[in-house]
Amino acid sequence: MAQVTQGRERLATGVIAAVLTPLRADGSADIALLAAHCRALLTQGCTAIVLLGTTGEANSFTTGERQTILEQLVGLGVSPADLIVGTGCCAHGDTVALTRHALSMGVQRVLMLPPFYYKKVTDDGIFASFATAIDAVGDPALRVYLYLIPQLSGVEISPALIERLSQAYGVRIAGLKDSSGNWPAIEQLCRTLSERIDVLVGSETLLLRAMQAGATGCVSATANVNAAGIVALYRSWRAPDADLEAKINATRAVFERYPVVPGLKAFLASSTGNARWNNVRPPLCPLSGADSMSLLGSLHL
Amino acid sequence: MAQVTQGRERLATGVIAAVLTPLRADGSADIALLAAHCRALLTQGCTAIVLLGTTGEANSFTTGERQTILEQLVGLGVSPADLIVGTGCCAHGDTVALTRHALSMGVQRVLMLPPFYYKKVTDDGIFASFATAIDAVGDPALRVYLYLIPQLSGVEISPALIERLSQAYGVRIAGLKDSSGNWPAIEQLCRTLSERIDVLVGSETLLLRAMQAGATGCVSATANVNAAGIVALYRSWRAPDADLEAKINATRAVFERYPVVPGLKAFLASSTGNARWNNVRPPLCPLSGADSMSLLGSLHL
Repeated sequence: MAQVTQGRERLATGVIAAVLTPLRADGSADIALLAAHCRALLTQGCTAIVLLGTTGEANSFTTGERQTILEQLVGLGVSPADLIVGTGCCAHGDTVALTRHALSMGVQRVLMLPPFYYKKVTDDGIFASFATAIDAVGDPALRVYLYLIPQLSGVEISPALIERLSQAYGVRIAGLKDSSGNWPAIEQLCRTLSERIDVLVGSETLLLRAMQAGATGCVSATANVNAAGIVALYRSWRAPDADLEAKINATRAVFERYPVVPGLKAFLASSTGNARWNNVRPPLCPLSGADSMSLLGSLHL
Repeated sequence: MAQVTQGRERLATGVIAAVLTPLRADGSADIALLAAHCRALLTQGCTAIVLLGTTGEANSFTTGERQTILEQLVGLGVSPADLIVGTGCCAHGDTVALTRHALSMGVQRVLMLPPFYYKKVTDDGIFASFATAIDAVGDPALRVYLYLIPQLSGVEISPALIERLSQAYGVRIAGLKDSSGNWPAIEQLCRTLSERIDVLVGSETLLLRAMQAGATGCVSATANVNAAGIVALYRSWRAPDADLEAKINATRAVFERYPVVPGLKAFLASSTGNARWNNVRPPLCPLSGADSMSLLGSLHL
């Protein structure tokens, strides 16, 4: 899993899939289908799976449900070494419990949201949230990826704050995922922080630019449906293929016209013939029949 | 608790305090202090207490901690009939568990946030979130107050959606609390919905206007420090006293210059001499010494 670049160990590189959580009609996770999907993504060249991130509807599950999903997935043979598990919650106790549980299951890497209910919080408050969680977990093996997704969390994690956490916790702050889509800010993070931590962009549309600026890879929702293509794009980064990049971006653009999670699930329901993929948890809604038709008709995968 | 107005039973009227949650240095809730504070607020004329809302740092506590706070508070003699308990979470299972627990403790009224992680969700998705929670609780005694606070939840609950929920669930949709501060929208809600449900405004600064438009009262954070004044304002609503209203608004305006929860806690720490009131949970931070001095110096309570 690890590669050494510029003198430090890289723990997250390449194309990482932000995996969808397939659901039964009653809303419970279908772990057999999830495990098969994870294996397929790894076979196509994804280097890891983000389990229970935004794409995986993490916050729509209780902490008990989240722990059960991880346990059952590992029980079905998915290696904890291939997983990065989302563990950041609004409540300190939940973040600590999920992070400890992931470590207890053999998962070293977690993707940590800041508490996301309160807005206009200060750097000191966000620092305290991460710091008290890391301290309470108290395991030097922990590797945290900070999750920057202000359009959903409503919380900005500033470069100065990342620097401060990195100074305070060393290798335990292993990296970040930036899903803001804000290229100037991401480029700045790459330039200033990528020698010390792994910078992952939250979309393959920024992957080549980010790699050239020092990023180590991307975490992609679209990898659920287009992993092989995105992996080929990643492997080409030193000598980019404009046609390939245009094709990858066109696919992403189609999905971005619809609510992303329902759209990706509608695609998998169609491509696999398993209608169970259409199920989502409220507040998300399945794509309408008309939107599904339109989405599928616009794709050339 | 109930009064009959315009042919229907009103379950939430007057000035309701959105109570702060006092904390020990380790971040655990100080229930003895909370119980004493609740009793003082009720003695000053508040008609009810919102326990574990935004002002109470609800989302910074795990569901287990929230249940324990309610149990211990009732154990110390605060009547469940005087409480409206915040129970809306991102995960369906958490909302259902907290709502069932509140009912099991003798609490009939809950203040329910919609799931607040995903943004740009549809009315259908929000409807499904509330509907599946109410259905799963399955208790006709439940009385839900919908919590409109888009500046923190990132979710708009439209008049059409409230109407749809009210049609579907009748008296179980007992009312709403609107903390948006958006007066034209609140006025519209009062005009169109207040005959059927209790409309509560989230600030005393809109109380008189809202009462005149059909609201039944307000849920106020500032009531933690200024309950008697706000109760006097409420009692004057048919013949408003401009001087009293100006004084109440001036106090609220001072607190709105600072992060509200830390500011209110700083005031209580000073006015009671109990420094424990200063404690907050991350991502909130206590007010700085300078801000506390400035806040206290600006107040004339």
